[in-house]
Amino acid sequence: MSDSRPVVLVYYPRRGEEYRSLLLERDPTLSLRVCETVEDVKAQIGQIDVLFTSVTLPPSLIHLGKRLRWVQAIGAGVDSFIYKTSFPKGILLSRITVSFGERIAEYVMGYILYVAQHIGEVVSNQTLRRWKAPESGVSLLNGKVLGIMGVGAVGGTVARAADGFGMDVIGLDVLPRELPTVRKTYSLDGLSEFLSQVHYLVICLPLTRQTEGMLGREQFAAMRGDAYVVNVARGAIIKEKELIRALEEGLIKGAILDVFEEEPLPSASPLWTMKSVVVSPHIAGGASPKEMVDFFVANLERFRRGEPLQGVVDLERGF
Amino acid sequence: MSDSRPVVLVYYPRRGEEYRSLLLERDPTLSLRVCETVEDVKAQIGQIDVLFTSVTLPPSLIHLGKRLRWVQAIGAGVDSFIYKTSFPKGILLSRITVSFGERIAEYVMGYILYVAQHIGEVVSNQTLRRWKAPESGVSLLNGKVLGIMGVGAVGGTVARAADGFGMDVIGLDVLPRELPTVRKTYSLDGLSEFLSQVHYLVICLPLTRQTEGMLGREQFAAMRGDAYVVNVARGAIIKEKELIRALEEGLIKGAILDVFEEEPLPSASPLWTMKSVVVSPHIAGGASPKEMVDFFVANLERFRRGEPLQGVVDLERGF
Repeated sequence: MSDSRPVVLVYYPRRGEEYRSLLLERDPTLSLRVCETVEDVKAQIGQIDVLFTSVTLPPSLIHLGKRLRWVQAIGAGVDSFIYKTSFPKGILLSRITVSFGERIAEYVMGYILYVAQHIGEVVSNQTLRRWKAPESGVSLLNGKVLGIMGVGAVGGTVARAADGFGMDVIGLDVLPRELPTVRKTYSLDGLSEFLSQVHYLVICLPLTRQTEGMLGREQFAAMRGDAYVVNVARGAIIKEKELIRALEEGLIKGAILDVFEEEPLPSASPLWTMKSVVVSPHIAGGASPKEMVDFFVANLERFRRGEPLQGVVDLERGF
Repeated sequence: MSDSRPVVLVYYPRRGEEYRSLLLERDPTLSLRVCETVEDVKAQIGQIDVLFTSVTLPPSLIHLGKRLRWVQAIGAGVDSFIYKTSFPKGILLSRITVSFGERIAEYVMGYILYVAQHIGEVVSNQTLRRWKAPESGVSLLNGKVLGIMGVGAVGGTVARAADGFGMDVIGLDVLPRELPTVRKTYSLDGLSEFLSQVHYLVICLPLTRQTEGMLGREQFAAMRGDAYVVNVARGAIIKEKELIRALEEGLIKGAILDVFEEEPLPSASPLWTMKSVVVSPHIAGGASPKEMVDFFVANLERFRRGEPLQGVVDLERGF
């Protein structure tokens, strides 16, 4: 009866017990093992059917799962399992595909409005009890061009939010996609034309062979001098050193960065203190454990019934 | 030929010359007088047909306009001309009714996202080169209730922006209005029911006899303990002392205030330093002089042709 009662292992550093209660609350009959360390996973991986795991798990461990049939990643990006490493054939891999969109849209619009309205300056005037409008006024988003690289579930939600402000939203994607709130979606061939128009460039792409290092000096040079880059995807999509130089040289105006080539961002990085750069610690897509568990439990039901799972990753395509 | 070539006086403290160039750029043949002081307006008001004026002009001066037929206020709120003062019969009064919506929507959503995402904490961690998520996480707007008091042109634009984040938008208005992005609009009778639901209360009402002091202790007590009040309309709609007490007692969580009973906000006000209070210096609706001039020039064309003006104020109704 392994189909109807698969043994599930959940791995999450320091949060195993939180996941245990959430999972058993949803399904008290679950046959569950909980690990917070890689060693523990190593010891048990041979005896389980389903792995529900943080994307920080070293991918080599997945190869040790002799009975393993399905890996549900706790995250939207599964590059750590499949990019520059191999994922075992015959095992299903799925990623979380809901809820990130709303969070990321709120992050993106929140931080763009923060810089456009000089909210930091207003709040710092407040601490001085100073009644004074921001020196350089407010830059209205209405009518400005927001360009989204990757208009899937996440990018599409960002598009809807930007449209609510009357922004002119354009997209770029490897797949042909049409969305009601995206005026035009460019293919990769149209990258320069796409980049030349945008006031705010939002990166919502997965990290793949095609997207790694996709934005460098040449691309920044194609952009407007007053443009902002917003990265909520993966740091390695941008050549970070070339971004820093582009900002220093004024090829673009600023950046809002939630992800970096190396995380945590090293304290020596100039990005921490650059003018017009906002650094946040990879929080944009931070769905709660409860949301992760809800997604997984619904998928587990499908798995038990032999139905197709949500969020299955196409290993060739890379997302 | 006073109909086709009316004499126009523009009054704006410290910005008269800016208005002069913008107006003459749009219509070089304009018969124009420019004043930056009240004394100057007083000396010339008897010889002009049209007054294009800051709402800070003392309303008594308008009564001295013997030939005056139309006053175009440079602003959306004309309470200073008609509330607790009389406006001369037979003179048309119009207010600016475009462009504020977009600005105010961006202010409202920008500052709500700023508090909901603890952006201040993230940015202050950045200055310390500290890779650390906000202590209390992020509060998602998606699914939360945004209540808008006054769903006219401005409130409707706020509603559209909030809807873009998947918020549940409800309204309250003296007029029955239906908007695609507002789930339900309450009449004044439904104030308590309306207030009890909202996570974010946004005030977009004009200041009238009916709205002055409309929100006090009783209304704050009817609200959720985690609710935020956002005032982008007029300070006197809220009983400010009762708001301060409600915040101190935890009847509501916080406030985002752009307008106050007295402006500039006196430095002795406790609002400057209260936890969960953001103070900004009446900037939310700050349209640019160019936008004001565009609106006026289009209205002036209508005036010359004897067509109905945009934004005419109903003196009885008060907006």
